[in-house]
Amino acid sequence: MEAFSDGVMAVIITIMAFELKPPAAPTLAALGQRMPALLVYALSFAFIAIYWNNHHHLLRSASHLSAPVMWSNLVLLFWLSLIPVLTAWLATDYRSSLPAAIYGTVAFLAGVAYFILVRALIAASSRDSLLARAVARDYKGLVSVAIYAIGVAGAFISPWIAYALYVGVSVMWLVPDPRLSRSAGGKAIR
Amino acid sequence: MEAFSDGVMAVIITIMAFELKPPAAPTLAALGQRMPALLVYALSFAFIAIYWNNHHHLLRSASHLSAPVMWSNLVLLFWLSLIPVLTAWLATDYRSSLPAAIYGTVAFLAGVAYFILVRALIAASSRDSLLARAVARDYKGLVSVAIYAIGVAGAFISPWIAYALYVGVSVMWLVPDPRLSRSAGGKAIR
Amino acid sequence: MEAFSDGVMAVIITIMAFELKPPAAPTLAALGQRMPALLVYALSFAFIAIYWNNHHHLLRSASHLSAPVMWSNLVLLFWLSLIPVLTAWLATDYRSSLPAAIYGTVAFLAGVAYFILVRALIAASSRDSLLARAVARDYKGLVSVAIYAIGVAGAFISPWIAYALYVGVSVMWLVPDPRLSRSAGGKAIR
Amino acid sequence: MEAFSDGVMAVIITIMAFELKPPAAPTLAALGQRMPALLVYALSFAFIAIYWNNHHHLLRSASHLSAPVMWSNLVLLFWLSLIPVLTAWLATDYRSSLPAAIYGTVAFLAGVAYFILVRALIAASSRDSLLARAVARDYKGLVSVAIYAIGVAGAFISPWIAYALYVGVSVMWLVPDPRLSRSAGGKAIR
Repeated sequence: MEAFSDGVMAVIITIMAFELKPPAAPTLAALGQRMPALLVYALSFAFIAIYWNNHHHLLRSASHLSAPVMWSNLVLLFWLSLIPVLTAWLATDYRSSLPAAIYGTVAFLAGVAYFILVRALIAASSRDSLLARAVARDYKGLVSVAIYAIGVAGAFISPWIAYALYVGVSVMWLVPDPRLSRSAGGKAIR
Repeated sequence: MEAFSDGVMAVIITIMAFELKPPAAPTLAALGQRMPALLVYALSFAFIAIYWNNHHHLLRSASHLSAPVMWSNLVLLFWLSLIPVLTAWLATDYRSSLPAAIYGTVAFLAGVAYFILVRALIAASSRDSLLARAVARDYKGLVSVAIYAIGVAGAFISPWIAYALYVGVSVMWLVPDPRLSRSAGGKAIR
Repeated sequence: MEAFSDGVMAVIITIMAFELKPPAAPTLAALGQRMPALLVYALSFAFIAIYWNNHHHLLRSASHLSAPVMWSNLVLLFWLSLIPVLTAWLATDYRSSLPAAIYGTVAFLAGVAYFILVRALIAASSRDSLLARAVARDYKGLVSVAIYAIGVAGAFISPWIAYALYVGVSVMWLVPDPRLSRSAGGKAIR
Repeated sequence: MEAFSDGVMAVIITIMAFELKPPAAPTLAALGQRMPALLVYALSFAFIAIYWNNHHHLLRSASHLSAPVMWSNLVLLFWLSLIPVLTAWLATDYRSSLPAAIYGTVAFLAGVAYFILVRALIAASSRDSLLARAVARDYKGLVSVAIYAIGVAGAFISPWIAYALYVGVSVMWLVPDPRLSRSAGGKAIR
């Protein structure tokens, strides 16, 4: 399950990078026209990379699978697999509310699926220390889901409110987390 | 063989996600026009995910390879690799009988290749308990193949009969299977 | 090096499957127009699958790397990565001599790179029994290279001579090889 | 982190191979028109393959992760993921200065990210012998970054100066390095 999930994540980044189109001419103006698409790509790149990292640590800390675990994982991967097409939509129509709101909705649904996945893993596993540690980190997940919900609502006032909130979630995950660094040290590297 | 098969499966999901096109405009109407393609994608996503899961468990439980095993595995992957292009065809022409019938035919042929793969693995292996357990699960495979055959015939009455049957097969595989959960528990996670 | 090579091979099959286009209409005539592309795809699918299998066994039986090993492996992967674009060319222009000849030339160059890779691995390794066994299988590689060379020449008489020879090479590799089955049995599965 | 990075690298090569278009007709003239694109592809193929190899050895020799390590790795992968779209741009507009300069700029930024990644790994790790050896090899990285900077400047005189320098960097990395061969021998293969 871990190898398949990793493969799907790498593949999602592929598709997004592939949707980037080269500038139409060898000029700075043509390069500038590609900037919004590049910034949306950077946002989605960070989004998937963060999920990949969390998901990878979560599955590693788990010790038992169950049917609900497999179901919720499948649903999570399905929502993540929609990010590339939404990235392509945002790259074109980034000034409109609807694409910004749908992007946030899928991010919200992915967050919910991840939350259910964590609960399903706890239900399937004996409450061992590794998974307990992973869950302790999970408050960030709940905050992210809430921010995405606010972002979806905010998108109908202005898409830029939504983008600011989505970027905020990514920054929140990317800032150094002392617990993460410590728990990932040593043997966790491979 | 397992790593290559996993890679091909991940890649098939890539291609399908890539065929999804963003809505042509930032409106709900444009989003609605993409819904049939999205539903077909969800069907094929579940189809490949189920195969990946079964195939992964099957190869893990096997202990010996042979030329017929490699042949039937190659043929199975070949049929699965045709699902993306058929998904793209269905996304456009979902109201017609022929694409629905061809989709079911390829699903049927994949099921037959999987059935032959299981037999080839049994012939190559000593009849160990792990593979015996995998084969005990295999009655679902035979039922699936039969339903796909009925679906192909039904497609010529109405493609919707075929879709209902294909979705039924996926649901049959996705419902919790107590034996699977138990046998996949503990050390099977990695 | 093995993981990267496996990844590149899986990726090559991706690209080829992606180049398959759905029929333009939901009719048998439209499906028939896609048949040449499908047959060329099947040929290239077998070509890459055979290389993946041999390459995987070769690297597994090797025990030492060197700069020439890495060079020749890189060159081999480069030639293989050209197969998708040549498959796309053949799918359109299969009645002409030039695409058929170029396809055979790249297959020939891949065979030469593989031959050099085997020699480089022998030079780098102590002559252990596993690699010796791999090399004993290598006469098929030399025969393949020779047939591809004849196929390139034959393409200028008729491309169908070339196709017959290319298919012949694939069939030669796909027929059961008792030594392979035996040496791949048991622990070689993982 | 290593598996994800490897996946992204394989995926980058996919995208580049996919951007190669078959000749428009089955003639030598049409084949000739594809030559610039093929040469740019070969340059980028070597560029990514070299990074993959160095990155793989670097992470293998490291023993501790930290937040700055993960950040700099993410930034490195982001720059590398822009190579395919720049390869596509160069394939079309290879006679102009701007694409050649931007290609070099991204190669320069990737080199800087790699340099920071090495420092972050040293800061996170105990100074063990494996990483020390990796860093000893790192002078080539500094020389590469400097050459890319010169190439960017040179591109505004003539893009061919830039291309000569970029090819020079790849050749510098591909020539046999006796230390690498020795340190990669034996158990380093798997």
